Amino acid sequence: MVVVMEERASEDQVQKVIAQLVEMGYDVHRSTGALRTVIGAVGNNRKADPRLVEMLDGVHEVLRITEPYKLASRTFRPESTIVNVGDIRIGGDEVIVMAGPCSAENEQQVMSTAAAVKRAGGKILRGGAFKPRTSPYSFQGLGEEGLQLLRAAANEHNLKLVSEVMDASQIELLERYVDIYQVGARNMQNFTLLRELGRARKPVLVKRGISATIEELLLSAEYVLAGGNMEVILCERGIRTFESYTRNTLDISAIPVVQKLSHLPIFVDPSHGTGRRDKVAPMARAAVAAGADGLLIEVHCDPDHALSDGAQSLFPAQFDRLMAELRIIAPAIGRSICLEPVARRGWGQ
Amino acid sequence: MVVVMEERASEDQVQKVIAQLVEMGYDVHRSTGALRTVIGAVGNNRKADPRLVEMLDGVHEVLRITEPYKLASRTFRPESTIVNVGDIRIGGDEVIVMAGPCSAENEQQVMSTAAAVKRAGGKILRGGAFKPRTSPYSFQGLGEEGLQLLRAAANEHNLKLVSEVMDASQIELLERYVDIYQVGARNMQNFTLLRELGRARKPVLVKRGISATIEELLLSAEYVLAGGNMEVILCERGIRTFESYTRNTLDISAIPVVQKLSHLPIFVDPSHGTGRRDKVAPMARAAVAAGADGLLIEVHCDPDHALSDGAQSLFPAQFDRLMAELRIIAPAIGRSICLEPVARRGWGQ
Amino acid sequence: MVVVMEERASEDQVQKVIAQLVEMGYDVHRSTGALRTVIGAVGNNRKADPRLVEMLDGVHEVLRITEPYKLASRTFRPESTIVNVGDIRIGGDEVIVMAGPCSAENEQQVMSTAAAVKRAGGKILRGGAFKPRTSPYSFQGLGEEGLQLLRAAANEHNLKLVSEVMDASQIELLERYVDIYQVGARNMQNFTLLRELGRARKPVLVKRGISATIEELLLSAEYVLAGGNMEVILCERGIRTFESYTRNTLDISAIPVVQKLSHLPIFVDPSHGTGRRDKVAPMARAAVAAGADGLLIEVHCDPDHALSDGAQSLFPAQFDRLMAELRIIAPAIGRSICLEPVARRGWGQ
Amino acid sequence: MVVVMEERASEDQVQKVIAQLVEMGYDVHRSTGALRTVIGAVGNNRKADPRLVEMLDGVHEVLRITEPYKLASRTFRPESTIVNVGDIRIGGDEVIVMAGPCSAENEQQVMSTAAAVKRAGGKILRGGAFKPRTSPYSFQGLGEEGLQLLRAAANEHNLKLVSEVMDASQIELLERYVDIYQVGARNMQNFTLLRELGRARKPVLVKRGISATIEELLLSAEYVLAGGNMEVILCERGIRTFESYTRNTLDISAIPVVQKLSHLPIFVDPSHGTGRRDKVAPMARAAVAAGADGLLIEVHCDPDHALSDGAQSLFPAQFDRLMAELRIIAPAIGRSICLEPVARRGWGQ
Repeated sequence: MVVVMEERASEDQVQKVIAQLVEMGYDVHRSTGALRTVIGAVGNNRKADPRLVEMLDGVHEVLRITEPYKLASRTFRPESTIVNVGDIRIGGDEVIVMAGPCSAENEQQVMSTAAAVKRAGGKILRGGAFKPRTSPYSFQGLGEEGLQLLRAAANEHNLKLVSEVMDASQIELLERYVDIYQVGARNMQNFTLLRELGRARKPVLVKRGISATIEELLLSAEYVLAGGNMEVILCERGIRTFESYTRNTLDISAIPVVQKLSHLPIFVDPSHGTGRRDKVAPMARAAVAAGADGLLIEVHCDPDHALSDGAQSLFPAQFDRLMAELRIIAPAIGRSICLEPVARRGWGQ
Repeated sequence: MVVVMEERASEDQVQKVIAQLVEMGYDVHRSTGALRTVIGAVGNNRKADPRLVEMLDGVHEVLRITEPYKLASRTFRPESTIVNVGDIRIGGDEVIVMAGPCSAENEQQVMSTAAAVKRAGGKILRGGAFKPRTSPYSFQGLGEEGLQLLRAAANEHNLKLVSEVMDASQIELLERYVDIYQVGARNMQNFTLLRELGRARKPVLVKRGISATIEELLLSAEYVLAGGNMEVILCERGIRTFESYTRNTLDISAIPVVQKLSHLPIFVDPSHGTGRRDKVAPMARAAVAAGADGLLIEVHCDPDHALSDGAQSLFPAQFDRLMAELRIIAPAIGRSICLEPVARRGWGQ
Repeated sequence: MVVVMEERASEDQVQKVIAQLVEMGYDVHRSTGALRTVIGAVGNNRKADPRLVEMLDGVHEVLRITEPYKLASRTFRPESTIVNVGDIRIGGDEVIVMAGPCSAENEQQVMSTAAAVKRAGGKILRGGAFKPRTSPYSFQGLGEEGLQLLRAAANEHNLKLVSEVMDASQIELLERYVDIYQVGARNMQNFTLLRELGRARKPVLVKRGISATIEELLLSAEYVLAGGNMEVILCERGIRTFESYTRNTLDISAIPVVQKLSHLPIFVDPSHGTGRRDKVAPMARAAVAAGADGLLIEVHCDPDHALSDGAQSLFPAQFDRLMAELRIIAPAIGRSICLEPVARRGWGQ
Repeated sequence: MVVVMEERASEDQVQKVIAQLVEMGYDVHRSTGALRTVIGAVGNNRKADPRLVEMLDGVHEVLRITEPYKLASRTFRPESTIVNVGDIRIGGDEVIVMAGPCSAENEQQVMSTAAAVKRAGGKILRGGAFKPRTSPYSFQGLGEEGLQLLRAAANEHNLKLVSEVMDASQIELLERYVDIYQVGARNMQNFTLLRELGRARKPVLVKRGISATIEELLLSAEYVLAGGNMEVILCERGIRTFESYTRNTLDISAIPVVQKLSHLPIFVDPSHGTGRRDKVAPMARAAVAAGADGLLIEVHCDPDHALSDGAQSLFPAQFDRLMAELRIIAPAIGRSICLEPVARRGWGQ
């Protein structure tokens, strides 16, 4: 860190700061200018709380010069991480689309939505069995039955499966069904959960909390990485701002920022990011144009009767059209969105 | 809810909205004006997602007219709730102060900090044994050993004890040590945890998440209340805003707002709310002046060597002085801050 | 507006609310339900302050059902407005790019930047002569000399010109030089200025303030429209949020939102919206993919020596590449970015 | 500033950074650590844009070590500024209360409100003649007639007068009537206006914009100070956050922060800060308890019929009670709120 002393700081105050830094394990470089003294503290102490120095007399400001995360940073690993899920490469040239219903509701709904996802070119089925709901009176998900329905539909349509894990106690159950664990925005700082997922042997998709900085998102990824699980996918899904017309403000600029700071793939969820069906397509296009590695989109075979989040779920025909638009956009940044041979036949007829 | 149609909405569109509302279980009142039709939907369906109506053609806006929480609202219970912890009445005329170290570190630290808390007039010892830390490389707390130290110190000094529970799996352990469970800001929407605490038989202090609206805080309380545990204390501890000089922006106005909307006691944590020791006293005074039912303050016998959050912990002498200032302020709003007989002798000598 | 009474509201309280509404000029419809009374107030009183009703005893909530703006709304004018500047149609099928330096600095800089703008397909030259600067010690612009340089460069390269007007007293001077007046983000609520521009006979581009809601942006446009000037272009340029990695958070979702609420064209300024050159291209692509009617981009012939905002200005070669990418993206949403015949020859050599 | 290089930065990249800093007029100190190089740049160049260095290859981060303001900082002037308005000392031991109607409406209203302000212990009459309104359809103020009414009422009741100036062209007119110029929140960055007020010979009260950082507020004050007018009063009036229950979130912590960074007096406006009458008293008490030098409060003889902001104006009796509460609180921090002899007789009877 760098400690900037006040202009009027005494020599005694400077010495106390130096002593504190040495006690914290830093090498100290002092630089005395005409107006003020600046002290550089070099070391590898990610645990140090800079506020302990900030509070000393004569200190004007303390500036951190190291990110608090390590394994998640591009400095640690310059080349981009590819997360492999079967033969799907997440973080490579292809933009990967995960889509499906907010919640699994019944066999027909899951199966026909999965068919729509496959037909349009989605590679991974998304769907919730355990739902974190703001109100205790809302539908809370089907639990294990939902996982069974989702797995069966994914198998039937040759899709991979991602689903949310809400609590460390659910990991063992989900492991039997999913290909990717999803950590929801409200759980982004559930450190008990993240630590356990660090020991899991399947990829983890971590969603950004609605008030989390990008740095905090990377620190949450660091919990998983530090546990030994290097297959982490990040996901922007909207931040809370003063603007209330949209549910959240989807932070598209997080895409290039994450790609500069970290080697991990970055996805975008335009469904939760906007909360309104008619805003999903424009924001999905924007995400791909800005360079996102993939999308997480809510599609429902009958949104008007969905048990949760129907208002932000696309109809299958809207999803088809969106995928067609994305195929035009992706090449602008040297990427592609593939279409399965069978799907290619079906789509557009 | 109230559905406002667009000025140009057709009769057919109005009929579709009415049909949807009836299907959702509402009684419908239609009011056709010169410019537009407004439809009132009356019913007791807290689960309904208004966005399902918002998406229909011809709908201009949907307005909710019922709060999504019930048990937490002052409409449900007009008189203020008093939470009794032994002979301490939380939510009554006396302003209750909970104070202590961020984390329990060792016996001497816990014991001498508890003595300072008691001497100045604090009634409840606070201290963490399990610490949620943004970075996986930070000190994570002593665990059960910490709880033992805190309980012993509370007993020795005739204080009650509040400590944080991070995960539903920890409730059973904490029950043996604490008088009040604390749910941290990052866990405010850990619904698994809240639901389990609804079955607990001790009071629960729920901290507002840094990006939670007041309505969301009350919904989290509703999870506990709906489980049958009516002893909930709310706590404001700062929200995230664009201003970066302070760690968070302590939302003092949340105090009168909560008191209007809900019957539950509202506390303020000026230590986490500001993140800086020199801002704790002004904000603690402001909270009491605005009508807070109590405070949660970090005090440490030796803040400069604290293992966590030392920079925002008060020295015992600062805490003494603050309590003296608060005793002047409380009567301005018809409240008091009591002093134990033994403490009264010690303090001010 | 709709007035929702409290569940326990008395008949007397209901009558007082009705009397107040009638006094404010509304027609009143009362709807008494099992739990509560809801009162609909219909009228055309955009001046009424709903808080006057909100404060009455027994009132639970007051809900507004009319937007406070009229001329700016799509209800008033369903078809999209096309702003014509010479033969350039803003708001039509073509995505229009305005580009140029932050400030005019000298003849060579303005002239060579204008050449680069033209060559890449830009239609309108942007550049500041009067600069609003947060610090009184920063470069404040060349004034009229800057306008002369910009006009000469625009003429030489067959471009139109947009430049910022900071104060009502400058309108007369700018009128002699510019084709479009720009109102900066800090002046979005300078109502004296907006009112005067309502009397001007040239188009006005109004930038969204960094903390302005979309509704407030439309109300600022309403000031110009209400004065009789119907040629208003809106511009999103980033809002202030808690995320501090980027200077502001560019609100891409404002594009589809504005297009739903209003008939006015909506532009995006990715240069001010991000504050960093390496984030301009991704966000410009995102804006076009989301449906923006145009872009406002800072380009400088030598950004490293710019007197202001060099760090967010593109090099000419970067601008060329970006325009090529945008030409791939625009057709995905049925739009185009044209290239002048002469420019087409020059570009890509 | 301090330039932190990337861990992998080459010697060539370091040399380019040094060259750029020297060209910008800095003295350069280089410190090469095991992991990375840190370059200190010392100088007095407040105009330099750190982003010009940030964009160079190999640069990890650039940290500013000097505040961009000078005359407003406590480093420049360690003792607190007292602004004298007649015999009233603003910034001294006494907490000064400015109160009155949002807008001057007619003689009776202004006169009887002024009487109420005086009786309760207010020292300065506030009231608007020119009103900045978000909607062009709202009441815009009485103009000069309003100033005449306010001046007459102030004289009659031996009060000083503060009123808002919206535009540089109005300064000359206001000078004939007011004792203090008020710059509204929306004009906090109207630099033309601020620069002109730097040449005025009366104090200026600058309100914080709803999205302005404290640093930006101090920079706006710097515009006035740099023009030679050293009598500046700052005023917190609420910032825009995600919480929508209150109109704005009053940032009480800005009080101690401003007092640490600057020597200028800091006031609080709880009326605009909350937008609701029932929240004004708690927040006014909180502001005084936190150490504010004064308050700006809306009082109206008949709030229910006010032409603007009636919903946030106190009734005279509420204002009386609030002043009595504040007199209890002020001594807790060594301050007082005086009562005129004549007023003392009237009050409390």
